[in-house]
Amino acid sequence: MPGTAVMLLTCPDRPGVVAAVANFIAAHGGNIVHAEQHTDAVEGIFFQRVEFALDGLDLPHEDILDAFRPVAEQFGMRVDLRFTDRRQRVVLLASKQPHCLYDLLTRWRTGELAADLVAVVANHPDHAGICQHMGVPYHHLPVDPADKAAQQQAVLDTLRDLQPDTIVLARYMQILPSFVVDEFPRRIINIHHSFLPAFVGANPYRQAYDRGVKLIGATAHYVTEDLDEGPIIEQSVDRATHRDDVASLTRKGRDLETIVLATAVRAHLEHRVLVYGNKTVVFS
Amino acid sequence: MPGTAVMLLTCPDRPGVVAAVANFIAAHGGNIVHAEQHTDAVEGIFFQRVEFALDGLDLPHEDILDAFRPVAEQFGMRVDLRFTDRRQRVVLLASKQPHCLYDLLTRWRTGELAADLVAVVANHPDHAGICQHMGVPYHHLPVDPADKAAQQQAVLDTLRDLQPDTIVLARYMQILPSFVVDEFPRRIINIHHSFLPAFVGANPYRQAYDRGVKLIGATAHYVTEDLDEGPIIEQSVDRATHRDDVASLTRKGRDLETIVLATAVRAHLEHRVLVYGNKTVVFS
Amino acid sequence: MPGTAVMLLTCPDRPGVVAAVANFIAAHGGNIVHAEQHTDAVEGIFFQRVEFALDGLDLPHEDILDAFRPVAEQFGMRVDLRFTDRRQRVVLLASKQPHCLYDLLTRWRTGELAADLVAVVANHPDHAGICQHMGVPYHHLPVDPADKAAQQQAVLDTLRDLQPDTIVLARYMQILPSFVVDEFPRRIINIHHSFLPAFVGANPYRQAYDRGVKLIGATAHYVTEDLDEGPIIEQSVDRATHRDDVASLTRKGRDLETIVLATAVRAHLEHRVLVYGNKTVVFS
Amino acid sequence: MPGTAVMLLTCPDRPGVVAAVANFIAAHGGNIVHAEQHTDAVEGIFFQRVEFALDGLDLPHEDILDAFRPVAEQFGMRVDLRFTDRRQRVVLLASKQPHCLYDLLTRWRTGELAADLVAVVANHPDHAGICQHMGVPYHHLPVDPADKAAQQQAVLDTLRDLQPDTIVLARYMQILPSFVVDEFPRRIINIHHSFLPAFVGANPYRQAYDRGVKLIGATAHYVTEDLDEGPIIEQSVDRATHRDDVASLTRKGRDLETIVLATAVRAHLEHRVLVYGNKTVVFS
Repeated sequence: MPGTAVMLLTCPDRPGVVAAVANFIAAHGGNIVHAEQHTDAVEGIFFQRVEFALDGLDLPHEDILDAFRPVAEQFGMRVDLRFTDRRQRVVLLASKQPHCLYDLLTRWRTGELAADLVAVVANHPDHAGICQHMGVPYHHLPVDPADKAAQQQAVLDTLRDLQPDTIVLARYMQILPSFVVDEFPRRIINIHHSFLPAFVGANPYRQAYDRGVKLIGATAHYVTEDLDEGPIIEQSVDRATHRDDVASLTRKGRDLETIVLATAVRAHLEHRVLVYGNKTVVFS
Repeated sequence: MPGTAVMLLTCPDRPGVVAAVANFIAAHGGNIVHAEQHTDAVEGIFFQRVEFALDGLDLPHEDILDAFRPVAEQFGMRVDLRFTDRRQRVVLLASKQPHCLYDLLTRWRTGELAADLVAVVANHPDHAGICQHMGVPYHHLPVDPADKAAQQQAVLDTLRDLQPDTIVLARYMQILPSFVVDEFPRRIINIHHSFLPAFVGANPYRQAYDRGVKLIGATAHYVTEDLDEGPIIEQSVDRATHRDDVASLTRKGRDLETIVLATAVRAHLEHRVLVYGNKTVVFS
Repeated sequence: MPGTAVMLLTCPDRPGVVAAVANFIAAHGGNIVHAEQHTDAVEGIFFQRVEFALDGLDLPHEDILDAFRPVAEQFGMRVDLRFTDRRQRVVLLASKQPHCLYDLLTRWRTGELAADLVAVVANHPDHAGICQHMGVPYHHLPVDPADKAAQQQAVLDTLRDLQPDTIVLARYMQILPSFVVDEFPRRIINIHHSFLPAFVGANPYRQAYDRGVKLIGATAHYVTEDLDEGPIIEQSVDRATHRDDVASLTRKGRDLETIVLATAVRAHLEHRVLVYGNKTVVFS
Repeated sequence: MPGTAVMLLTCPDRPGVVAAVANFIAAHGGNIVHAEQHTDAVEGIFFQRVEFALDGLDLPHEDILDAFRPVAEQFGMRVDLRFTDRRQRVVLLASKQPHCLYDLLTRWRTGELAADLVAVVANHPDHAGICQHMGVPYHHLPVDPADKAAQQQAVLDTLRDLQPDTIVLARYMQILPSFVVDEFPRRIINIHHSFLPAFVGANPYRQAYDRGVKLIGATAHYVTEDLDEGPIIEQSVDRATHRDDVASLTRKGRDLETIVLATAVRAHLEHRVLVYGNKTVVFS
């Protein structure tokens, strides 16, 4: 499959912007294979995802942004340019629970995730075997309860070495401090095991059981400094009944977490997620 | 359809309780047409809904509880006895919004709700015409902003006159004070337009929009003194996207509210809901 | 709300088409408020829905198509032009069952359906009262079993008089002969009470019960000469269990039919449905 | 967790049956931990799943059926007795596609499936590595296109050796001939990648694409001689749009197949599925 370029655009809503972008691409010999736009009428902001074939384009990858600059400046655009022929580097962070990790490993191995899985980083040794079997380097960085900061620094050092484009917290049960989060803005995806903003914090299935809800949920979001407050990418729910205790809610929740995280990661890797303020536009 | 009796039973979990109840019914010539039980293993509580034919029973309706008393006392049971051949009296409370009200009126008229709809009470005159058309008495009790308590007292007086078994708040936008709630414990059903406990209080669709959630919800619950904190009967959700503004969330939410409230009301009228603590057991 | 124009475009996929359309609109002072495109890569067909403000446009409604003709011819486009400030005329066809009819009447009355409900045509007298109450003319055209064709001709004559843009079969239980269907191509919407193509024909809930399925469905589609074979607009399902008999499947199905039909009708009235071959593109 | 016995009972519906079963268990010192019954009013058949603690029972496992015989004969019952402290032997059959296989392996490994996974049998060598890693014997039985019967016989011989209680076809793409099916009645579970009875046979995602459906589905069912016609255990669906081609429907379908098959296998292993005629009762 020949590569495409994806532009994620944000600007004040003004007449002519769609035409300007389309003309730029047409003028350089590109063919638009997908385009989707959205206008936030309340805020007066225009968003667009436009994907065009690189085959036939009269510009090399690295010159596209420069060539586009006049259009971007005319409309006051924020431009994010990605290329589908440059595979992203993905690092997974995990703890003891295997479900999200195994699922992402399987999807990667079967080619469903178009990315390079460069490493798994975990604070437990449990998944070293499966990662070795699948050919993914495994970094075991245990936590010393007396000095948690040491492991956090080790995580940062490891991530700096690995240079990931995207980091996925696959039920990683340690706090990621802001000095780590700040280095990878909008590039760390977490799965929270509740329908946010219900049941923030610890033990959401226990909280759901205590409240007697009839649905449980899971939420994938970008990690920001405020825990459980980052931009939401994807959510889903499953039915709960009086028959469910905390254990069965937890079991049902695992399937939710797995699917919701995988859906969010795929949307992110396909360059379909645009963050603005504390929200996301997820193009289809 | 000949009538049945429904017993909703709660007691400490102990061996022999299922046999004792089944023997009582068999000994009096009853045939069990449905039975469903649940044990809350954490709390050690046993719950049962048992429905048996009145045809063939050697006891009149009013003697069943007395005859059952020895079994109830042996196991320390709380017993709630209902009869499907005695139609419940239902009162709907409404304000300006029509969707839940019209839906319940339609279901009642087509025979889907096995109950007598004895009146609609509303603080606006808007629905008098449709109620007249459908032959349901309409009580218009307007709110004087300078003296809200007067209308609340009028509502209570009206309800006392109407003697409802069940009261449904079909998007009734006034606070029901505790002196009203206390007279009808576990008999007032409300629809809240969010996935509780997310977005309690006012303007949940606005709150959902501001947070950027990817699902919106609705919750039907029994009304208690603590607003939005009563036992949940039913919940459901629908997808939201970045394309949704507050108006479209509100529109989507109307369909959710309608279905969730109708589902809860039907479960309640079919004697399938058992309240314990702040939770419900909803039998199938 | 000032009006907009909606163009639904279909043409062979070629570079430059998005730019050409955007340029045409920009050149005439229009502002695109929504645009969505889709390419069927298998068939090589391009689809676009583009909606632009009429306010500021330098063309009157009736000159837009002419002005656009050069673009349409250059790309071999099929163009369908609609205006949101020209309300569509809708006729509902019904029989005895009220759920879909009442639901659409309610949505229309609360302003959710941006259309003029010009009449209800029914082969039973049952709904005359509610229609009179709501101010919608009611045409009762009973069927003579010995001469069904007479009623079919009466339906056609009535529809010709009413000149509807859209006809909705709200559980209309009579066959609509091809001489009626042919006069309103892609303008008649039906609700079938199964998840097509499962359970075509009569008694789908009976068929579902006999097969022991765990989900039941409903399907809204455009009516074509081949019964149950027209382009599908919307489908949904609900859970079924061993506890469901034909009656309870039918009851659950009513809610499905109501929502699915309303969703399809709204998409159609918002000019979001584009038919090609035997399929639909439903823009968001 | 101490063991329980599960009785799955079927008999003509008659008064006294619930009491008779409960009395039998109480008389032998058993405590009912779950009981659920269902009456098919159309056929006049009574179904019950009753689970009781073995701890305290005055009968050894192998004497329970004999002791129960008088009750069974009195009511004309078919009795199926299972023990949760006797782990079932499960064999998975697979071909090239990994998603259902990997998922079941992961669930087994994390203790979610209370069974012994005794072997994987496959007509391709692809999954030998992961099975070796997880410690599950792998039987590679390739198909010779010129003599398919030889492989079918090898499968039967292997299954006879393995003596499975349950066989799961985890996207096994070979026909299982009736001489294999007949030896394991109601013990072979298959996943079909459509919402049966829609799209029986080959290439259901292609069929779904061609028909333009708005939902795709998956169906888990017991294998009978008639392909795709066995009793349905579980079904689910996911949304499809005009954007989906056969490849994306196939990808979405993988998640459906995985969850639906796992749900059915869990229900089966928890002795919650009772087959009658061509239908199932799936207890909660």
